[in-house]
Amino acid sequence: MEINTHSKSLVKKFRDVRARSEEICRPLEIEDYVVQPIVDVSPPKWHLGHTTWFFETFILVPNFPLYEVFDPQYNFVFNSYYETIGARVIRTHRGNLSRPSVSDVYRYRKYVDEKMNEFLDSHYMKDAIAPLLELGLNHEQQHQELLITDIKYILGHNPLFPAYKKDSMQAEKAVKEKRMLRFSEGIYEIGFDGLGFCFDNEMTKHKVYLNDFAISSQLVTNGEYLEFMEAGGYSDFRYWHADGWNWVKENNALSPLYWHKIDGTWMYYSLGGLQEVDLNEELCHVNFYEASAYAAWKAMRLPTEQEWEAASSAFSWGKRWEWTNSAYLPYPDFKKEPGAVGEYNGKFMVNQMVLRGASVATPPGHSRNTYRNFFQPDLKWQFTGIRLAK
Amino acid sequence: MEINTHSKSLVKKFRDVRARSEEICRPLEIEDYVVQPIVDVSPPKWHLGHTTWFFETFILVPNFPLYEVFDPQYNFVFNSYYETIGARVIRTHRGNLSRPSVSDVYRYRKYVDEKMNEFLDSHYMKDAIAPLLELGLNHEQQHQELLITDIKYILGHNPLFPAYKKDSMQAEKAVKEKRMLRFSEGIYEIGFDGLGFCFDNEMTKHKVYLNDFAISSQLVTNGEYLEFMEAGGYSDFRYWHADGWNWVKENNALSPLYWHKIDGTWMYYSLGGLQEVDLNEELCHVNFYEASAYAAWKAMRLPTEQEWEAASSAFSWGKRWEWTNSAYLPYPDFKKEPGAVGEYNGKFMVNQMVLRGASVATPPGHSRNTYRNFFQPDLKWQFTGIRLAK
Amino acid sequence: MEINTHSKSLVKKFRDVRARSEEICRPLEIEDYVVQPIVDVSPPKWHLGHTTWFFETFILVPNFPLYEVFDPQYNFVFNSYYETIGARVIRTHRGNLSRPSVSDVYRYRKYVDEKMNEFLDSHYMKDAIAPLLELGLNHEQQHQELLITDIKYILGHNPLFPAYKKDSMQAEKAVKEKRMLRFSEGIYEIGFDGLGFCFDNEMTKHKVYLNDFAISSQLVTNGEYLEFMEAGGYSDFRYWHADGWNWVKENNALSPLYWHKIDGTWMYYSLGGLQEVDLNEELCHVNFYEASAYAAWKAMRLPTEQEWEAASSAFSWGKRWEWTNSAYLPYPDFKKEPGAVGEYNGKFMVNQMVLRGASVATPPGHSRNTYRNFFQPDLKWQFTGIRLAK
Amino acid sequence: MEINTHSKSLVKKFRDVRARSEEICRPLEIEDYVVQPIVDVSPPKWHLGHTTWFFETFILVPNFPLYEVFDPQYNFVFNSYYETIGARVIRTHRGNLSRPSVSDVYRYRKYVDEKMNEFLDSHYMKDAIAPLLELGLNHEQQHQELLITDIKYILGHNPLFPAYKKDSMQAEKAVKEKRMLRFSEGIYEIGFDGLGFCFDNEMTKHKVYLNDFAISSQLVTNGEYLEFMEAGGYSDFRYWHADGWNWVKENNALSPLYWHKIDGTWMYYSLGGLQEVDLNEELCHVNFYEASAYAAWKAMRLPTEQEWEAASSAFSWGKRWEWTNSAYLPYPDFKKEPGAVGEYNGKFMVNQMVLRGASVATPPGHSRNTYRNFFQPDLKWQFTGIRLAK
Repeated sequence: MEINTHSKSLVKKFRDVRARSEEICRPLEIEDYVVQPIVDVSPPKWHLGHTTWFFETFILVPNFPLYEVFDPQYNFVFNSYYETIGARVIRTHRGNLSRPSVSDVYRYRKYVDEKMNEFLDSHYMKDAIAPLLELGLNHEQQHQELLITDIKYILGHNPLFPAYKKDSMQAEKAVKEKRMLRFSEGIYEIGFDGLGFCFDNEMTKHKVYLNDFAISSQLVTNGEYLEFMEAGGYSDFRYWHADGWNWVKENNALSPLYWHKIDGTWMYYSLGGLQEVDLNEELCHVNFYEASAYAAWKAMRLPTEQEWEAASSAFSWGKRWEWTNSAYLPYPDFKKEPGAVGEYNGKFMVNQMVLRGASVATPPGHSRNTYRNFFQPDLKWQFTGIRLAK
Repeated sequence: MEINTHSKSLVKKFRDVRARSEEICRPLEIEDYVVQPIVDVSPPKWHLGHTTWFFETFILVPNFPLYEVFDPQYNFVFNSYYETIGARVIRTHRGNLSRPSVSDVYRYRKYVDEKMNEFLDSHYMKDAIAPLLELGLNHEQQHQELLITDIKYILGHNPLFPAYKKDSMQAEKAVKEKRMLRFSEGIYEIGFDGLGFCFDNEMTKHKVYLNDFAISSQLVTNGEYLEFMEAGGYSDFRYWHADGWNWVKENNALSPLYWHKIDGTWMYYSLGGLQEVDLNEELCHVNFYEASAYAAWKAMRLPTEQEWEAASSAFSWGKRWEWTNSAYLPYPDFKKEPGAVGEYNGKFMVNQMVLRGASVATPPGHSRNTYRNFFQPDLKWQFTGIRLAK
Repeated sequence: MEINTHSKSLVKKFRDVRARSEEICRPLEIEDYVVQPIVDVSPPKWHLGHTTWFFETFILVPNFPLYEVFDPQYNFVFNSYYETIGARVIRTHRGNLSRPSVSDVYRYRKYVDEKMNEFLDSHYMKDAIAPLLELGLNHEQQHQELLITDIKYILGHNPLFPAYKKDSMQAEKAVKEKRMLRFSEGIYEIGFDGLGFCFDNEMTKHKVYLNDFAISSQLVTNGEYLEFMEAGGYSDFRYWHADGWNWVKENNALSPLYWHKIDGTWMYYSLGGLQEVDLNEELCHVNFYEASAYAAWKAMRLPTEQEWEAASSAFSWGKRWEWTNSAYLPYPDFKKEPGAVGEYNGKFMVNQMVLRGASVATPPGHSRNTYRNFFQPDLKWQFTGIRLAK
Repeated sequence: MEINTHSKSLVKKFRDVRARSEEICRPLEIEDYVVQPIVDVSPPKWHLGHTTWFFETFILVPNFPLYEVFDPQYNFVFNSYYETIGARVIRTHRGNLSRPSVSDVYRYRKYVDEKMNEFLDSHYMKDAIAPLLELGLNHEQQHQELLITDIKYILGHNPLFPAYKKDSMQAEKAVKEKRMLRFSEGIYEIGFDGLGFCFDNEMTKHKVYLNDFAISSQLVTNGEYLEFMEAGGYSDFRYWHADGWNWVKENNALSPLYWHKIDGTWMYYSLGGLQEVDLNEELCHVNFYEASAYAAWKAMRLPTEQEWEAASSAFSWGKRWEWTNSAYLPYPDFKKEPGAVGEYNGKFMVNQMVLRGASVATPPGHSRNTYRNFFQPDLKWQFTGIRLAK
């Protein structure tokens, strides 16, 4: 029967996704779960609790009469930006919370997972709930990527530079031919219109008119970016947005994140530890201002998100989130869902730039060429890179 | 001869524009020329000096061999954001500078105007210089609007609420029928392609594909916005962007700028002084967050700048700068000019939203339906308003 | 032989003091060792490492040729404010450091303790080193008090309000008669002049001339302070220093630290957990501004540190650090030691107020009536209280 | 008759003091009256209005039934820190207020002066009011010194470096023999106990016990301080308080205020304009941190305020406010006056350091060897200097 099949595949997906979050955290010490070095980075235990809280709050509590909340205080602790749910007793900061302990959080996950399994096998699980379950799983996959970027930030800003995993995510570095792929002026269709899950911000599919454009078949490499650095790119305001130039001066910016010049050699903190910068590797950890300045120095530009999507089948992507020159704004027929779930995307549609593609930290099966990632233009702790256009 | 005619009309335009800046300042006390209450507002004497410095620096110095700089120190004082020109001895703040005095600034204007008149009559004035002169005049017209908005801010934030002019800019308030104007899906052409002056950011004319949309024939009135306020619009996060909601809370925002509830009555500081809010007048002095929240409360939205431009011949505009839901980004074939003049527009193309139309403070002859104004989403000291779309 | 005896008692003191720091941390979860909620509070593992680093850096490295540094990186991590020693690779924040892990820190302690024991038994241990060893032990005792106050802050600012120990530090609350003890005008002698250890800031003993004064035999209780709160003390600027009043307004201050009004009842977070405020208990966790305002409301004042010391044998003290109205300044013959050890006290002699006595968190044997504690006037996470004078 | 005589001399003093404030402002342009470059500096027109408001509010309104307030709004504008009086409509900043205009302020002064003259001649003027009038005049004299220091700051931070007066305050620079004056241990009497006016903070006269001390007969000169600068004083933390060292680093401090190294020469902005630093002149415009660091570098110290007062008849003083190593605290029998006048001094008795003496900017007749000036330790826009002790 259709529903059962669907349900079974969902049950399997639920188990896989939930297990992968814990798998990502396996190399951590307990202490690594707790700290929050900057406001954008969350403690790993918070990610583990928050993704669990999502299933408890949005699936179990409203739909499973047998469910008892694990701990009513956890709503304050693991709620993120959902203004609809709850208030706070003590104004605090995720990185100040030593409790609940890591083992409490794992007990919380175990409890909710067991109840979810009971629920998914029960008659309370209705077809109408499936989309919300899908959302919860995609939500957890987004946090899996954040888990990796945040763990990297925590370990990479420790003066001992501990490795996460010695062999972590060594991508093949086949040097490929770089060329400009050309596309002709005309109407293109943009947005999601297939089967399966997508976020609300990818809808609805709509027509756009694009001018002639060209886009690179390859991402910018460390070696290419180093030329920009050595040519004085960080000290010449002409390549920068006004806000970008202010960012350079206020932060005394000189290089991508995780680059350290030690005894005359550029070193890079990867999840495997500190190592020499590999000039042939795709550049990583630049922000929008740096990506734009690099493009300006090359007398080129970043693609728009529409150009990127229209061209995406012509190049390989997925190693870096690629900055576009598109602000994060609603598609023509975008509709915000009512209630707390509607806070998911729409309320961020100002002051952020779109990134397209996926990265080495993105969970398998969690990428699409219509996927719209978005961050403020000064952030660079995600696995971000540059693809040029003109 | 073509050139002479052109030149004559430019000479006349030069005199008119320059005179109008001083005309705007006539009602001021000397003290009003000096202060800078917030970083976005400049002292009026700075506007008068800065617009003069533009002609001195970009027209006279490079093109008129007979010219002697009025005071070499003025480059530090009246330079604005042009990173290419000059450095600073003392880091200071426009609102801290009591000198040059107001009479010094008027002497500076007089000196540069006389030299400009000599120059424009001389053989040094070449056709190739005309576009830069046009830019200088349009630049001064932009500062004329800022002069009015900044004077309003300075006087409107003084506890004595002094009037600027008793009869200033009383617009006719004919209550007109409001209706939604409908436009059909298809390709539209956007951008400037006529004769005469435009800014670089309006070019080049290009095709866009728009979905069906509807746009209001009228601006939102004070009375309509008051309904939103009284319905609790400022205390319900659901209508706000996340950044907008933070802005509301940090600033304890409760009303448009210049509104004061005194003894139970909403009062408004206009350039004529403090007066009761006129419910039929077009709403003024809201920021992008407020405009968006109002639209969300009405279950509508702001138009994009492309929709606005495509529809603009179907409604009357010009009383308020109208917030659009478009981020300020380059048009497909936008080219940044080389040198300091190229810093004019392109470097601001991040983190700002586009406003379309013009306002009661815009100089006559300085508006076009392709004009792209832009400000950060939290600013509201310009004469800004709301036109709804869906 | 004199030296051996001395050395033996030092060896015993070394073991006792070092063991007590670990004893204090026994009730903690690993996560509790890591966080830093405010800049004044350090993570417990940092205290454990820093006190160890002191012995390594100032005793073992310069005096014990057989010693090998445990980990050269630890100098960056566990150095505190000693400008003389080392520089930093990465600018960081104690609360961001998940590594070294808690077990690493305990291994570090064990290693240094073993080497110290070897050293103390060896011929390298000279008499001349004893004072520095004494300083190291007193330094660790100071950090033992900070361990308790910081643990309280970490747990007391967690929305789960976990208890540290259920029976922790329940002081006897004998209600005693309160009266004003009177002292006559004249010359008194102030400062340390005995045998045994004292800090450099307690020297040298010197004469002061005091007017007639009276000082309370008892500390202010919670009940007495609650009267001040209920009489509107926090909303009447007349009782406050100008800086204190700014502090009240900026922090919206309404009560001592750790007080929470829940369902109409004043609750207090003690190390045993959240409990009702005990009106007969000595008030705790007020800052200098609050202490001064309370005194002003009672039409009295705080004692000076000279009055406190002169009168100290006439009352019992030791439950609360008692704010005085004396700024932390050098005694007439104060001499700053050369080198890093000289940074211990003298460089803080500005912008801080003196507290006298000791508290329930002070290690046994670590108090004297000449002891000068000092903190900025806005801080109140120490176990601070009020004794009135006039 | 006694009262009349007293009254007549007060009338004369009133006229003289009031005239002198306007005399100080005579060289100013209108624009100079308006700006406020930093929070510690007030616009000159504010000083003129505020001192006038004092007489209106504390003398005329409560005592002269015939008096009509000049403008009730001025209470918001010219009130300073008196929490007792008034509230605010608009939160603003003195440097943002272009109105009341300078001519309005002079009209206000003229109006109040006329009414004061009427009042002083009337039977409403009672003996009991004389102390408050004295306070008002001394208050205005304090603001006369601030007028000079604030005008210097305004003009000295303008890139045009305009002179205030070409011949302003050129003190004789007789190089005198410098020696250490010695004083013996014992009881000294400190505080005001004479006839005539003093501030409440100078009372009451009381005994202190001082150790042997020595104090320099001369102030430190520019040349001596330059040696400290050239010896690397600003880059060696050992000479600085911890807070002082933070101040150095945050402000990148390298020299006294108003010193500019131009083409290799140290220049100094005096009220006569920019000129070369005179090595024999008494050092001016250092803060407490700099004064302390200089003393530490000389292996000496700053005197306490008690030492200074005890020794003051043995040296000449009055050119610089001399930093002491005494925190600003109440004398043993200090009593705060009730009401707004009581806010004058007592509420500042925390977080500030005492300066003794007077300066070239102090009004004639406004200095005493018991006078206690006080400022935060990081401020240096007053005419401050250094006298060493040991």
